[in-house]
Amino acid sequence: MDRDDPWSVTDRSIHDTLAALRDEEANAAVATVVDVEGSAYRRPGAKLLAPADGDALGAVTAGCLDGPVNSLAADVRDSGTATVETFDLTDGEEWGLGLGCNGIIDLLVDPLDDSYDPLLDALADHEAATALTVVRSADPEVPVGSRTTVTADGDASGSDRPGVPEDALDSLRAAAEDAMAEGTSGVVTVEREAGVLDVFVDGVEPAPELLLFGSQNDAKTVAKFGAAAGFRVTVASSRGARADGEQFPDAHRVVATHPTEVAEHVQAPERTYAVLMSHNLVDDRLALEALLRDTAVPYVGLMGPRERFDELRDALAGDDVALTQSELDRVSTPVGLDLGDGSPTGIALSIVAEATAVANDAAGGRLREQSGHIHPRVDPST
Amino acid sequence: MDRDDPWSVTDRSIHDTLAALRDEEANAAVATVVDVEGSAYRRPGAKLLAPADGDALGAVTAGCLDGPVNSLAADVRDSGTATVETFDLTDGEEWGLGLGCNGIIDLLVDPLDDSYDPLLDALADHEAATALTVVRSADPEVPVGSRTTVTADGDASGSDRPGVPEDALDSLRAAAEDAMAEGTSGVVTVEREAGVLDVFVDGVEPAPELLLFGSQNDAKTVAKFGAAAGFRVTVASSRGARADGEQFPDAHRVVATHPTEVAEHVQAPERTYAVLMSHNLVDDRLALEALLRDTAVPYVGLMGPRERFDELRDALAGDDVALTQSELDRVSTPVGLDLGDGSPTGIALSIVAEATAVANDAAGGRLREQSGHIHPRVDPST
Repeated sequence: MDRDDPWSVTDRSIHDTLAALRDEEANAAVATVVDVEGSAYRRPGAKLLAPADGDALGAVTAGCLDGPVNSLAADVRDSGTATVETFDLTDGEEWGLGLGCNGIIDLLVDPLDDSYDPLLDALADHEAATALTVVRSADPEVPVGSRTTVTADGDASGSDRPGVPEDALDSLRAAAEDAMAEGTSGVVTVEREAGVLDVFVDGVEPAPELLLFGSQNDAKTVAKFGAAAGFRVTVASSRGARADGEQFPDAHRVVATHPTEVAEHVQAPERTYAVLMSHNLVDDRLALEALLRDTAVPYVGLMGPRERFDELRDALAGDDVALTQSELDRVSTPVGLDLGDGSPTGIALSIVAEATAVANDAAGGRLREQSGHIHPRVDPST
Repeated sequence: MDRDDPWSVTDRSIHDTLAALRDEEANAAVATVVDVEGSAYRRPGAKLLAPADGDALGAVTAGCLDGPVNSLAADVRDSGTATVETFDLTDGEEWGLGLGCNGIIDLLVDPLDDSYDPLLDALADHEAATALTVVRSADPEVPVGSRTTVTADGDASGSDRPGVPEDALDSLRAAAEDAMAEGTSGVVTVEREAGVLDVFVDGVEPAPELLLFGSQNDAKTVAKFGAAAGFRVTVASSRGARADGEQFPDAHRVVATHPTEVAEHVQAPERTYAVLMSHNLVDDRLALEALLRDTAVPYVGLMGPRERFDELRDALAGDDVALTQSELDRVSTPVGLDLGDGSPTGIALSIVAEATAVANDAAGGRLREQSGHIHPRVDPST
């Protein structure tokens, strides 16, 4: 969707805007959810960007702390000093019984300085990273906001703030690696002689990639829903078919490729979700083979009925390149979740919902079924 | 989404545009898929509007017939006469092995005249209707394009074209009622002494309604995805909270209501999908009770964790208005499909995907699971 609501921007937009604000050396503060207890709308790691010029982008609550957070951000922009604030929304009247507004929430609010650069560099390289930030300190030598970022290339700090002390880093390394692999965030307490530190371990992953092989009209619709859901969208058109950015206003990248070379356009294989929708059986087969053999993409959705895939698989077997079970496990066909809506928008919704589910290791069924049927009365002990 | 791609517009947009073009007495042709055999992208009933002024809207194929369809539409606009054309895309070279482009497709192309008015009137009243249109005729008295529309108020024809003959109508009534109830479309052959007729029975339902109770930021995001997926979206804000159309650019209607009166804003109960997201437990409880007791809405999604619903249900039981099992069956909590994405856009995608699945009697899981696991080799007899 092209009109981004500033509140509900995707992580992709947050990352892109962080990088753009750093590029222009903008005066901005970043609020990050560090810890929540009770009913909170956003989880640890959720961010809000508050530049001096322009509107805030992102959300750290469902809306109940807009005023206080904005004023805190203004203070941080002025002082240049990171701070951690606890908001207790449990005591009733002021915030009411509001969902997502009756928990306790810890926010880190810090200036957008060069301590963010190692993280942003990693994201630009399609790599995850973990920012380690001191959020409580009993060591007078280690101020709140001290930050070291763990990346695939090693540890890095900015020059504007101290790093996390070496002796603490050692005991944080395992947590940092886990957070990087899982994209999770949470607080780790480090007991040290010089004073206990609470460190926010913020694993940040690049946005997932949606690779659409095909350039018919229906790819446009999938691109639109995919971008809206937070994917970075590449449209790869085959055989010199139209590969025009203007045709795909929601795609972040449009490339022309031969189907056998589609793998060359996979930039972050382990977080790329591919959909084959060239509408041409031969092209789809060549692209399927290339993606399964030459990349580690976890998901290749194939448009069309099951019979079409049978045909395609038999053709591969005839060519003596029969698919293995582990390759088949990566193929999703018929592509999409079962939404029963065969319209172009229904199909796009179904595909993007499935790619989202697979990207998050979720099953795609109805949540209410997973928590058991609802009964008029439940035993309070269950 | 606010930039509608003309090809992938929703049925809601098609209906709205049909009505607008009729209002301004525009010169336009309508192409409708009547029958398909083999691999077709769109199902019978899919429509494309081709006004003399302006771009075509909608899709009857995946894009393989754009030229022929547009030229046929121009002929129909000139002649004012309905026509049915068969396109055989099975013979290889010209359309290739294209998915959705290697079947046989029958298109009805007719002028947008007053024979459309009974259908459009029904849709404006939030009611379904079935248009019966002769698509093949062995009776010289009954031209192709003859149309009678069956509505809840009875049968109606326009004055610009003949209706379907009375003797044929009798044998079509059951099919028309079924099509109206299910929103399905297909051809029925009527054997008559005066000559066999093939009649296209086109059941058309109004767009499904998404009723969002709540006016926080997150409602905005659900409205955006809901509108993009083809719902007509109403935002009902409670207790005089902001109920400003400008706050909800994707909502088709914004109303302020007391939670106990939310049922008054349900215009088409059997196709309304409600989501309670006021973030206020008392308001959500009152609205839940009102929707379940005063309306027949089939789906009430409730934001928040399962425990929140337990609390709410216990409060109802304490008020001696315990929910019955059939009422509970209409409640979906936790709301949404299991996509594992807790961001604002992920939650909105999950809710709209679930409402779409429920609206289409679909289960929401992965389609590939439903068709069985994929094996390297399958017995061709299965």
